[in-house]
Amino acid sequence: MFPKNAWYVAATPDEIPADKPLGRRICSEAIAFFRGADGMVSALEDFCPHRGAPLSLGRVVDGTLQCGYHGLRLGTEGQPVAMPGQRISVFPAVRRYPVVERHGFVWVWPGDAVQADEAAIPPLDWAGHPEWAYGGGLYHVRCDYRLMIDNLMDLTHETYVHANSIGQKEIDEAPPQTRAEGDAVITERRMFDIPAPPFWQMALRGMGLPDDRPVDRWQICRFTPPSQVMIEVGVALAGQGGHEAPSAVKASSIVVDFITPETDNSIWYFWGMARRFKPDDAALTDSIREGQRKIFAEDLEMLERQQRNLEAWPERRLMKLNIDAGGTLARRLLDRLLAAEN
Amino acid sequence: MFPKNAWYVAATPDEIPADKPLGRRICSEAIAFFRGADGMVSALEDFCPHRGAPLSLGRVVDGTLQCGYHGLRLGTEGQPVAMPGQRISVFPAVRRYPVVERHGFVWVWPGDAVQADEAAIPPLDWAGHPEWAYGGGLYHVRCDYRLMIDNLMDLTHETYVHANSIGQKEIDEAPPQTRAEGDAVITERRMFDIPAPPFWQMALRGMGLPDDRPVDRWQICRFTPPSQVMIEVGVALAGQGGHEAPSAVKASSIVVDFITPETDNSIWYFWGMARRFKPDDAALTDSIREGQRKIFAEDLEMLERQQRNLEAWPERRLMKLNIDAGGTLARRLLDRLLAAEN
Amino acid sequence: MFPKNAWYVAATPDEIPADKPLGRRICSEAIAFFRGADGMVSALEDFCPHRGAPLSLGRVVDGTLQCGYHGLRLGTEGQPVAMPGQRISVFPAVRRYPVVERHGFVWVWPGDAVQADEAAIPPLDWAGHPEWAYGGGLYHVRCDYRLMIDNLMDLTHETYVHANSIGQKEIDEAPPQTRAEGDAVITERRMFDIPAPPFWQMALRGMGLPDDRPVDRWQICRFTPPSQVMIEVGVALAGQGGHEAPSAVKASSIVVDFITPETDNSIWYFWGMARRFKPDDAALTDSIREGQRKIFAEDLEMLERQQRNLEAWPERRLMKLNIDAGGTLARRLLDRLLAAEN
Repeated sequence: MFPKNAWYVAATPDEIPADKPLGRRICSEAIAFFRGADGMVSALEDFCPHRGAPLSLGRVVDGTLQCGYHGLRLGTEGQPVAMPGQRISVFPAVRRYPVVERHGFVWVWPGDAVQADEAAIPPLDWAGHPEWAYGGGLYHVRCDYRLMIDNLMDLTHETYVHANSIGQKEIDEAPPQTRAEGDAVITERRMFDIPAPPFWQMALRGMGLPDDRPVDRWQICRFTPPSQVMIEVGVALAGQGGHEAPSAVKASSIVVDFITPETDNSIWYFWGMARRFKPDDAALTDSIREGQRKIFAEDLEMLERQQRNLEAWPERRLMKLNIDAGGTLARRLLDRLLAAEN
Repeated sequence: MFPKNAWYVAATPDEIPADKPLGRRICSEAIAFFRGADGMVSALEDFCPHRGAPLSLGRVVDGTLQCGYHGLRLGTEGQPVAMPGQRISVFPAVRRYPVVERHGFVWVWPGDAVQADEAAIPPLDWAGHPEWAYGGGLYHVRCDYRLMIDNLMDLTHETYVHANSIGQKEIDEAPPQTRAEGDAVITERRMFDIPAPPFWQMALRGMGLPDDRPVDRWQICRFTPPSQVMIEVGVALAGQGGHEAPSAVKASSIVVDFITPETDNSIWYFWGMARRFKPDDAALTDSIREGQRKIFAEDLEMLERQQRNLEAWPERRLMKLNIDAGGTLARRLLDRLLAAEN
Repeated sequence: MFPKNAWYVAATPDEIPADKPLGRRICSEAIAFFRGADGMVSALEDFCPHRGAPLSLGRVVDGTLQCGYHGLRLGTEGQPVAMPGQRISVFPAVRRYPVVERHGFVWVWPGDAVQADEAAIPPLDWAGHPEWAYGGGLYHVRCDYRLMIDNLMDLTHETYVHANSIGQKEIDEAPPQTRAEGDAVITERRMFDIPAPPFWQMALRGMGLPDDRPVDRWQICRFTPPSQVMIEVGVALAGQGGHEAPSAVKASSIVVDFITPETDNSIWYFWGMARRFKPDDAALTDSIREGQRKIFAEDLEMLERQQRNLEAWPERRLMKLNIDAGGTLARRLLDRLLAAEN
């Protein structure tokens, strides 16, 4: 139950080299991604019209996708362009999916191609900006994409799932504020004069700031459809204005989450962190990425087991507390999109 | 097809430490076991009413079970007791299963709690008795629990499955005697003036008795519902009275089998041996346990493959020979219990 | 969708030792193969009539198959012959499948036994012939057996799947000739004055011939039902008559393929190579077998992924090009057999 007429992050550019296609299922569509002669990414249905072989097992030859079984070559629009000894003019074309490389990601539109509008790809202010650095990774998770949205729109789970890194009891104690804002849902939590948890102590030290002083902390989660959650997170030395404090006394960043359905009950989860400090420090980028990789791995078992529990008890109604308002409003937005699509 | 209004062995006490729950499916019920502040075991449905997370992924905090996702804490009766920032008085309770720790096992009643009567937990005379020692283990087996009952109520299989340890051709040659006795089924076999097989040679040596003399041997299998099989086994130097011979000339013990359905086609199989000699010899307990572990492992492939064969040929009627009378009568008892339950 | 009234290769003789049965599913029939007292292979349904245990977990005792659970012994015709303490005269017999050991293979007839005629086992001229040597192996592949027939009846795939061993672009450029000939389908391709690919360079060197001269090359694929494909392959120094050139200037052999359905979507693939040169050179046999094992392994992922693609898009019609004529005619023959059988 996901909108198909939408842009989803399908891959990072490095996953699609010049000579080899990438096979990946997105919103239940099996897709072979490859680069044409101009280096632009193309996305075709992963099914060779000749004998049904997956095109993603093939090769890229002169900017065409050559089937690895009997050699039919397809162009970037899905049109047959060559096959030794065959009159390919009568061959059917392969379905093509709109695809765009932008902001350091490959975006695909798995639904009706006619409706695809590149202008609808969300702006990412930090992407490619010289004052910012980005590092991230990819997890495959066996859960409904909405469980991951719930997860990210209710950070009280940090106290329990991430007790040793970013969790702290003060999160629980600060009630979140949630609101819909046009096509976005925002839920935020601000904590004042609290100790910094280990992850943020590390970040403060990285900024040359003391790690043992009280801080103000914030989490501002912003969901936009179909399944993107950007979270402004940070700490500032207490009493300096919190989120609005001057850069010199705070450590902050944006947690980046693109949640792409693979099937109804599995996702490609592209996670990362964009930061506005020390953008040229590649070692810091690596170190943050590894820290985030470990923290986000802590969610996976919980989400997969929650998914199995919900499948086993399909009739159970879950509770909707104030902390669940972000996920609840996000689902309401999605339901509207789905209704419009069907 | 198992009675649910019955006590089943769910775990051994060491599987449920003070700080962590144990998740285990019993008779198709997903259950989280944990210890309250008084150390008593509690059993709750393994589904958090907040968002459906498995409670067994949580922690035990001050004798309450804290959900590992967003921190809802449940008491030993399943009642919500705390969640930061929430008015838990309106929260629903979680289903609680009757559970008792007794005789060195944790017993659970997966059916209608109102009917649970602790007095119905079977007595185990040897449990905790100073003259007896017990050692055992747990196997997970993918078969209907009745196939394991059949297995244990027809020990002719020892000749073929356990040819190198407890099997011997004389078992086949001694026809079993089977009878129903109240709510129990007993099948027994007595063999006279035969050589001792390797396992019993070892036991005789352990008793300081010769291992190369003819012996009398017995196997007295006692099934009681829902799925417990206790087997008196032993050998005595031949001509001294067999099962009734004086302790000094025999080696004997009780094979203990609790067969707990996990689902319709898988079980938790608690096996062990209780002996009335050298009760303080822990090394002997370990050595017997390891011997039994190896012998019982020999049954697993056969039972799992038999299960798959029966699933593939559901219409086939099996034979009921005299050696199958124990299993046949046990199933008749179970059918009566199931009819009464439905 | 495979004919059941047909002879299929079920095993090689070494897979069925004197003391142990072999369990193998052939055309969806679960079968236990074993050798009787005279060493002849027998094939029984893999289901003990006593309690449903797989007979293939048992033992061979004095030329009978003894069930490994409770010891029922069955003769080579499936008749019960012994069980301690039982009157076996009332026991039902186990279904027996016609089975013959011939040409270095064990052939089974999974359908109506009455129709089985040993004379219908195909002749293999090279089998056991002193001037020939044979080496082969077995792969289990998760695909419809007809996909493997297609694969072998259209060798253009060599150019893409086996680019580093036997593939070369000249294959694509030589259109195949396909014809039905009685109950066989033959598709052949002849290439003239081309470079020899690596595998054939190796073979030429083995023959003491130069490996850097132009050659004529041929591939003559012969399908006979239900699922046998024999392929005459070879190269000769160019201009000496190609396939008809004298032995001294060519290297040639027969690729042997027996494709035995396990289920509707999996096969036992017996592959090998028969050669008419250096028949006594066992090291050469081993070396060719290993080379062939690696080359044929390259097809497996493609076939299994093609199978999954076809299952995911069951409504798609595939193309039938000239290169597919061999597979298409083979399927037509099979359809006739299936229609006659039903």
